[in-house]
Amino acid sequence: MSDLDIRPAAPADLPAVVAMLADDSLGARRESPDDLAPYHAAYQRLADDPNQHLMVAVRESRVVGTLQLTVIPGLSRRGATRSVIEGVRVHADERGSGLGTRMIEWAVDESRRLDCQLVQLTSDASRTDAHRFYERLGFTASHVGFKLAL
Amino acid sequence: MSDLDIRPAAPADLPAVVAMLADDSLGARRESPDDLAPYHAAYQRLADDPNQHLMVAVRESRVVGTLQLTVIPGLSRRGATRSVIEGVRVHADERGSGLGTRMIEWAVDESRRLDCQLVQLTSDASRTDAHRFYERLGFTASHVGFKLAL
Repeated sequence: MSDLDIRPAAPADLPAVVAMLADDSLGARRESPDDLAPYHAAYQRLADDPNQHLMVAVRESRVVGTLQLTVIPGLSRRGATRSVIEGVRVHADERGSGLGTRMIEWAVDESRRLDCQLVQLTSDASRTDAHRFYERLGFTASHVGFKLAL
Repeated sequence: MSDLDIRPAAPADLPAVVAMLADDSLGARRESPDDLAPYHAAYQRLADDPNQHLMVAVRESRVVGTLQLTVIPGLSRRGATRSVIEGVRVHADERGSGLGTRMIEWAVDESRRLDCQLVQLTSDASRTDAHRFYERLGFTASHVGFKLAL
């Protein structure tokens, strides 16, 4: 398979990224790929925050994956900085290709480079395939994730 | 009970905050209250990041609670900004006083004020009392939280 590049997302990548967010069992109800305005506003908020890393995976000039890595300093665990992975999506054509593994390995390596001592993420309880995937990559399902919509 | 103030943590609050982080079934193994240097360094990283809100709850000039609120912009859910609550601790003398509820209500209100559309947190799977507490406050245990130590 041809070379993969993982690089910061540019505004021109947004249609492809939003299409991937929407092409998902949970995302289909939550996203509006026909109206990109709220995504462009959010992209600017991400670009303005040096602790945010919105990434795309690109193969043959085509966006085939995305994830967001956030660096969060903190006091607990002797002042440990942690990273949080959110919004992981792999294009339907690429599922099973190992791209998800490449992207998470990138996020773990980048977290180490940014002096994080911990990487964390939450995954919807219904995504049991994803849970096995993260456990294979060394993550431990040690926590319960709570959400409250405002 | 006397009035409670929830305000940003100052460097002078760190000994009391770290003592609370350490006075915990999980924190006891992870923290070093006798060596505050790593916490002061972490405090500076928090102070330098406008999306971080390290708070203390103070009653009669005494620090009796702490939490960290982080604001995370993002693309998913139509460009929703979310907040994450970490490092919630209530002093042993105040447990059962309703202080935890006051602190989480503060975090939810502040998240709304900061235009977040979602509040999230993770809680160690062993903290079953905490899970009931968050569910009473309206949170849904919809996710599995994964961690990887680096």
